[in-house]
Amino acid sequence: MTPDQVEEDAGAERRAGFIGLGLLGLPMATNLIDAGYALTVHNRTASKAAPLVGRGAVLAGHPMEVARPGGVVVTALWDDAAVQSIATPNWLARLTGGLHISTATMLPETSRQLAARHAAAGVGFVEAPIFGRPEAAAARRLAVPYAGAAHDKRRAAPVLKAMGAAELFDLGEAFGAALATKLAGNFMIISAVRTFGEALQMASRAGADPKRVVDMLTSTLFAAPIYQSYGQRLLSGGTGFVSKIPEKDLGLFVETAGPLPTPIASLLQTLVTEQRRA
Amino acid sequence: MTPDQVEEDAGAERRAGFIGLGLLGLPMATNLIDAGYALTVHNRTASKAAPLVGRGAVLAGHPMEVARPGGVVVTALWDDAAVQSIATPNWLARLTGGLHISTATMLPETSRQLAARHAAAGVGFVEAPIFGRPEAAAARRLAVPYAGAAHDKRRAAPVLKAMGAAELFDLGEAFGAALATKLAGNFMIISAVRTFGEALQMASRAGADPKRVVDMLTSTLFAAPIYQSYGQRLLSGGTGFVSKIPEKDLGLFVETAGPLPTPIASLLQTLVTEQRRA
Repeated sequence: MTPDQVEEDAGAERRAGFIGLGLLGLPMATNLIDAGYALTVHNRTASKAAPLVGRGAVLAGHPMEVARPGGVVVTALWDDAAVQSIATPNWLARLTGGLHISTATMLPETSRQLAARHAAAGVGFVEAPIFGRPEAAAARRLAVPYAGAAHDKRRAAPVLKAMGAAELFDLGEAFGAALATKLAGNFMIISAVRTFGEALQMASRAGADPKRVVDMLTSTLFAAPIYQSYGQRLLSGGTGFVSKIPEKDLGLFVETAGPLPTPIASLLQTLVTEQRRA
Repeated sequence: MTPDQVEEDAGAERRAGFIGLGLLGLPMATNLIDAGYALTVHNRTASKAAPLVGRGAVLAGHPMEVARPGGVVVTALWDDAAVQSIATPNWLARLTGGLHISTATMLPETSRQLAARHAAAGVGFVEAPIFGRPEAAAARRLAVPYAGAAHDKRRAAPVLKAMGAAELFDLGEAFGAALATKLAGNFMIISAVRTFGEALQMASRAGADPKRVVDMLTSTLFAAPIYQSYGQRLLSGGTGFVSKIPEKDLGLFVETAGPLPTPIASLLQTLVTEQRRA
């Protein structure tokens, strides 16, 4: 089978494996079913698959059952270790001629190692980390940077769109580039939100009405989705950081930066850790 | 004269004093002349007034000559001390029944003190700090938050619009509120730019093409003017911070925050000071 035949077959049969039904994975898998995909799904906690099984998805008890020669498997997993634990030599052998699309936010270096292991097994690999909260996944409004070999990205693109990507951004062929974009973006989000919070506290103390400050700034220089949504949350007293994502992603950011100075990322690591422990 | 009569007269005669012909002051004064205002101008370095005098402005050798009873004077000055040095008791006495519009970025507390001094002399005071670079002033695309008594703001609004304010944002009657908005915004700009720079360095080290990273982030979550303009500058190697404004405004921010924690602003103070000294 040539890559093109694989691509056509996949397009024709709209069939995929899906591993990882977390906060983002579940709505993305649901979108695939809505788009007509026949899914074989696996999740560590099998009960989370119930809504998908109710709509015709096949539940696999083991990741091995999700892989088949020439097939497409999406993994929507938490971190490097989780992806590495799925993409074992046996699993890759079973997926030969196929494609693995990984949405996990992990180290660029891990992606490079995984890609080499996939290539050796004759499996394509595409890194496609996801920008968007679960509500955005459900609304098919995700922004997705992706990287990998051109023919693998061509095959991955329709799957990612069916999963809820409103926009795909091609970061090139070098593995790690899409992940670096995601780490850059998450760092920028965390910095923007903490900065906005610090600014509003100062403004309130100086006697300004924080709502008017938010209204002005988010309709002029900071008229961007991230400031508009978090501005409203800050006004109602929350920062929106309730998950472990900020700590994890700042850690990946600093590790990826290596010897480069990361004064802001390092400060934010301290701040989000303090916040979570408070 | 009632305030309404003053307003109509000012509207009818389109006459104003203007003190401070710096990088923002000069294009704003030019805009007033373009709008048909008869200007009396003063600047510490008188030669900077030449282009305005060439277009009919009257050059005043002393700030006292710019003030007249019932008149409007705009000051576009660097800091608290500069505004305080102009708004002396004698100067305010000369401006009785008039209005002073100050565009300086200064402490909210200084504005409250100045406003009280103006009120005691029967002079209106409006704080109207300016968001926008000199190019934006020339293009009449400034965003201007303002605060003060309602009748003073009504009189100030057409002057500010003629000066180049594309949008005016009413921060209320409490003095300091517009200045706090400006300090919040400048802090957020500095944080955004430094954060973006740190993110792009990490992404480049991870093998991503920084141009693609900028393109993606500034067309999705960070699709805001500030990221779009500074993103392009960061790509061409500059951060755009060549003035003393960041250090000055971060100092005002931290001072205004008083006992509140300002971890990000304090870090940025260190970073911009190091950058300027490098």
